[in-house]
Amino acid sequence: MAKTPVAVLGATGMVGQRFVQLLVDHPWFELKALTASKRSAGKRYEEAAKWFLRPPMPEEIKDTEVLPTSEKSVEGADIVFSALPTSTAKDVEPKMAEAGHLVASNASSYRMEPDVPLLIPEVNPDHLALLDEQKDRRDWDGAIVTNPNCTTIILVLALKPLFDDFGIKRAFVSTMQALSGAGYGGVKSMEIQDNLIPYIGKEEWKTENETLKILGKLEDNKVSPAKIKVSSSCHRVPVLDGHTEAVFLELEKKANPKQASKSLSDFVARPQELGMPTAPEQPIIVDERNDRPQPRSARFAGSIPGMAIVVGRIRKDPVLKNGLKFIVSGNNVIRGAAGASVLNAELIKSEGFLE
Amino acid sequence: MAKTPVAVLGATGMVGQRFVQLLVDHPWFELKALTASKRSAGKRYEEAAKWFLRPPMPEEIKDTEVLPTSEKSVEGADIVFSALPTSTAKDVEPKMAEAGHLVASNASSYRMEPDVPLLIPEVNPDHLALLDEQKDRRDWDGAIVTNPNCTTIILVLALKPLFDDFGIKRAFVSTMQALSGAGYGGVKSMEIQDNLIPYIGKEEWKTENETLKILGKLEDNKVSPAKIKVSSSCHRVPVLDGHTEAVFLELEKKANPKQASKSLSDFVARPQELGMPTAPEQPIIVDERNDRPQPRSARFAGSIPGMAIVVGRIRKDPVLKNGLKFIVSGNNVIRGAAGASVLNAELIKSEGFLE
Amino acid sequence: MAKTPVAVLGATGMVGQRFVQLLVDHPWFELKALTASKRSAGKRYEEAAKWFLRPPMPEEIKDTEVLPTSEKSVEGADIVFSALPTSTAKDVEPKMAEAGHLVASNASSYRMEPDVPLLIPEVNPDHLALLDEQKDRRDWDGAIVTNPNCTTIILVLALKPLFDDFGIKRAFVSTMQALSGAGYGGVKSMEIQDNLIPYIGKEEWKTENETLKILGKLEDNKVSPAKIKVSSSCHRVPVLDGHTEAVFLELEKKANPKQASKSLSDFVARPQELGMPTAPEQPIIVDERNDRPQPRSARFAGSIPGMAIVVGRIRKDPVLKNGLKFIVSGNNVIRGAAGASVLNAELIKSEGFLE
Amino acid sequence: MAKTPVAVLGATGMVGQRFVQLLVDHPWFELKALTASKRSAGKRYEEAAKWFLRPPMPEEIKDTEVLPTSEKSVEGADIVFSALPTSTAKDVEPKMAEAGHLVASNASSYRMEPDVPLLIPEVNPDHLALLDEQKDRRDWDGAIVTNPNCTTIILVLALKPLFDDFGIKRAFVSTMQALSGAGYGGVKSMEIQDNLIPYIGKEEWKTENETLKILGKLEDNKVSPAKIKVSSSCHRVPVLDGHTEAVFLELEKKANPKQASKSLSDFVARPQELGMPTAPEQPIIVDERNDRPQPRSARFAGSIPGMAIVVGRIRKDPVLKNGLKFIVSGNNVIRGAAGASVLNAELIKSEGFLE
Repeated sequence: MAKTPVAVLGATGMVGQRFVQLLVDHPWFELKALTASKRSAGKRYEEAAKWFLRPPMPEEIKDTEVLPTSEKSVEGADIVFSALPTSTAKDVEPKMAEAGHLVASNASSYRMEPDVPLLIPEVNPDHLALLDEQKDRRDWDGAIVTNPNCTTIILVLALKPLFDDFGIKRAFVSTMQALSGAGYGGVKSMEIQDNLIPYIGKEEWKTENETLKILGKLEDNKVSPAKIKVSSSCHRVPVLDGHTEAVFLELEKKANPKQASKSLSDFVARPQELGMPTAPEQPIIVDERNDRPQPRSARFAGSIPGMAIVVGRIRKDPVLKNGLKFIVSGNNVIRGAAGASVLNAELIKSEGFLE
Repeated sequence: MAKTPVAVLGATGMVGQRFVQLLVDHPWFELKALTASKRSAGKRYEEAAKWFLRPPMPEEIKDTEVLPTSEKSVEGADIVFSALPTSTAKDVEPKMAEAGHLVASNASSYRMEPDVPLLIPEVNPDHLALLDEQKDRRDWDGAIVTNPNCTTIILVLALKPLFDDFGIKRAFVSTMQALSGAGYGGVKSMEIQDNLIPYIGKEEWKTENETLKILGKLEDNKVSPAKIKVSSSCHRVPVLDGHTEAVFLELEKKANPKQASKSLSDFVARPQELGMPTAPEQPIIVDERNDRPQPRSARFAGSIPGMAIVVGRIRKDPVLKNGLKFIVSGNNVIRGAAGASVLNAELIKSEGFLE
Repeated sequence: MAKTPVAVLGATGMVGQRFVQLLVDHPWFELKALTASKRSAGKRYEEAAKWFLRPPMPEEIKDTEVLPTSEKSVEGADIVFSALPTSTAKDVEPKMAEAGHLVASNASSYRMEPDVPLLIPEVNPDHLALLDEQKDRRDWDGAIVTNPNCTTIILVLALKPLFDDFGIKRAFVSTMQALSGAGYGGVKSMEIQDNLIPYIGKEEWKTENETLKILGKLEDNKVSPAKIKVSSSCHRVPVLDGHTEAVFLELEKKANPKQASKSLSDFVARPQELGMPTAPEQPIIVDERNDRPQPRSARFAGSIPGMAIVVGRIRKDPVLKNGLKFIVSGNNVIRGAAGASVLNAELIKSEGFLE
Repeated sequence: MAKTPVAVLGATGMVGQRFVQLLVDHPWFELKALTASKRSAGKRYEEAAKWFLRPPMPEEIKDTEVLPTSEKSVEGADIVFSALPTSTAKDVEPKMAEAGHLVASNASSYRMEPDVPLLIPEVNPDHLALLDEQKDRRDWDGAIVTNPNCTTIILVLALKPLFDDFGIKRAFVSTMQALSGAGYGGVKSMEIQDNLIPYIGKEEWKTENETLKILGKLEDNKVSPAKIKVSSSCHRVPVLDGHTEAVFLELEKKANPKQASKSLSDFVARPQELGMPTAPEQPIIVDERNDRPQPRSARFAGSIPGMAIVVGRIRKDPVLKNGLKFIVSGNNVIRGAAGASVLNAELIKSEGFLE
């Protein structure tokens, strides 16, 4: 299988760097272009990007010239990964799609558009079918596929097996989110040192609404939102990477913690069946220790580090009907952003949507 | 009014030190004795206690000899404040009560006994009446009065005005608790650095059950638990002092955020009416800023620093019937422990239970 | 004594807020005007300043209108406190001085000018005499007086008694500096979480050079630099407030740790003699505990909280001739910035330089 | 080459776990036994050790029975790695050596014995010759070889090339040490949160004295200490892993930063020549960025993660003759402890001391 040429938009930021890291040796994709804002364009990638990941910046990418974010820069790239900020993404992504690129976007700009798949390959791979509708309706040669907000991905991946096996009526989610979720400069040290911030702009809206679309049913080229209700409260804590979420669930059918644990542990889906390279063997790891999951260890969980989520403390909820409580933790930048988009692109390629 | 002689049991630990700080210049109480474990007994307080509060240890207490925790050591003290660990408290406190002392305890050992008041002076001052029942039934000259667990106090104080004004059917609580809640040596730095721990032993049980007793009705010398249901998920975060709690409420009667805010801000109760010295003028402060309350600033809120709690982000809950969500933060060692016991003792004295 | 009208330039930032806090109830000064950048001008102080100090913003200042930083805004203020950034200070301060104001500046722009006092009132109060020279030479009605860099102040205050009593030939200083030293937004949480940054721009140059001027001799209206040599290495650590410095000294005359301790503890100077309101009774506190000073407790040391520094671990240096080692910790924003300027202004007023 | 059977003493603690991690797939060694204190003996390793490393505990070791620390438990192991606490090591290690084992110890108990090599394979591989002397004198079949204290290893490895190329007369070292250096439970979170502790028991003595032995000359079966003088000041900061040290050097011969940088970067030694499996290709990495090294990235530096140290900010010292300053950071548990002992054992095997 010839490698598919790809590009990364917004390659110098935190999510952009994770894209580069995941794509530089990717078995299916070949990284052809990196773009960034004008300030960085023209520089070598090593100069333009203040690399903060471990391991260090891959040698083979250091000398790559960073290009300005434009259609010209990504010519020849079948897939364009977007780590652009929302406002830029809003302008740029449709142009790229119109020009024939498949845009795999981490931005929130088009997530809730009816004809744009809001995709988690383990959860709603069939929503990809919206791509045809999208191309038709918009008369584009390419298309946009999006991944959900980081907090939503981690939540919904944990909900999916329970949703399938027992049904979910209502979910209450209280998050403890990592600093990296706000971008490299998003949270000042003076704000968060010995403190927490119980507010993250738009995050509650996203988790409460994206969830319904992702778990929704595709019928007649439309997604009808799932009949689940979600309420969330989102908080920033002094942790580098890894969002942790306390979840309270009202199920349709009774399930005890052991049944729920099995449902979660056993869960595999389309990416695992297809053997997609960025798909972890086991997407949901249940940690039975009484004080887990913890973000410091959960953040690189899985056979593909950072792509599995970890669930723990599954217990009966004493208040809700058929109630269950648990904690889930996952890597917000990998499973929750760059890895999510790469997985989307792998599904698209696997399912023949690139041809 | 002559000052009432008092003693502190377990005076060298974190809660013990707060007791000393609150009592050393207290207008109603006179600190007569400090006790601690055998290891510390016989030492000067300055040697025995590794003081970690600001301001520094009061001069007048430095040379006080620390006594062993025994009935003899507290002779002459009408009120005995207990910062003992649960297991020690279980043995020691009944003996002290039998010997005629009023034990104001922060320990959990007797909180759920039917004839022991589990008291928050702003919430259920009438439960003090259990003291007579307790003395009678146990044939004690003294008695035990307890304050709830720190997380419960902060929660229930925030619930009280809403409970009175609108009724509460169900509450979901997700906490982000401070290191000091586990005692000085409770959380190792290697455990919590760049991390969080989503588990605190017995904390969820306490919040879910103590709440019902505190908000319960006193009838025929018994407390019938309130018909509210509580589910909680408790988590430790790297913050020195100040527990923060995300609360989701189902109310009996509809209340919009503005009404709830007014209900909370306007709340004053018996301690404020009586002008008790450790009662903050306004027990619940509503902070309207969109990213508050934060523990670093909330931890010393109030006219008596650390005795007021701060509520913020009051908003509609999209899932629960008559649903409301908010965040509350308060000082777990002052309002949640030592200050709580002192306030209990002040109520006891004000209401004439010492005579 | 009638209160002297004063203004604060750059009143909304971290140092500016400390100025406001120290001046709002000052017995000698009356706060007449607050200025800030254009973005804030016209707003009420409460809106313009994101207050991050404890206790909360004083009520009486909340409604004060923030003015643009200009000569007009400070008319009528005899003393103008400057918390301006270096580049702005460079332009604005001379104009203010020319217009007749006494500018007490925390900025670095004019510290090393030969006719500008670089003042620590406990260390070189006689350098104030440069003010006459400055006015003459520059033909100004007012003048500029500066305080040193925060790290330098804490260092030099600790060096002064030893310099006087034993002579100092060489000093090596390695710092562990607080986040607040970089300003509220200076250090991103992603940079410093679970990390340290061994570099602070220009800080080493400042400590190595300012020290010589401060400890220098005033002769013929000029300061001849002290014959001490200083080498420093400056590092940022995840601590909110309080710079800690490890100092290695080569003394002229032998001194054992006990003698050094006494020299430091006994030290009082002109501000203490004059009873200046912001002068701590004991400017240098020696803490004999083997693991002190620590910034969390040292940051508010002293009878005027934050104005005393704490020295500990005084021990022989095994390498240097007449060698001594110790650790010093002090509040970088109070003693090291705003409090330093206020103390300068108090000295100026006390010594009659305002008339 | 047949694998050498080895055992780990004290296998459940922080250093013990790193031993297990480094040895479980080691090409030269075969892990035959794990020992721990009585409390853990008899348990499966997975139960006995609270694993805190990433990646998770290797599957193949989970079921290994933890044995009591005794001679019997390590029968058949040619090399015994010791992560024992000092006091236990003092008793146990000589018995093991007498019984014929080569004890590669991280404990401090025998480091300064004249006939015990205090070894850094890149620095003083020739000191291994002391083993023969040791066996003779003590009439042991086995022997003890030690690695220095973590802070000393990182320091001395950075000093070695400069010592060889330019000579070093005096060194001043100020450290910022990681939490893990104190063991898992060594530093309480309440002590270090938003704080630092400027004291680490015995650490200054160790760095000041071990350095002289390591850099000393082996003559007539004795090490004569190097004529370098070291003064250190040791401090704990809130960083998980990675000790950072600010070093001020007086050289024998002048060297500018560029020459020093080249001396450090070019440095390779016996372990690299021998291609020892745990030896990093480049033991000293010079990072030219102006704000490096930082422990978060330096802690896993090198081709063998955690075995290289990172030096940065090499600059002239303005005070010392032929003075240089720099910062060095390295992994205290890998290069500074477990990896150090493994490297020692590899050298011993390579050089034929096992036969």
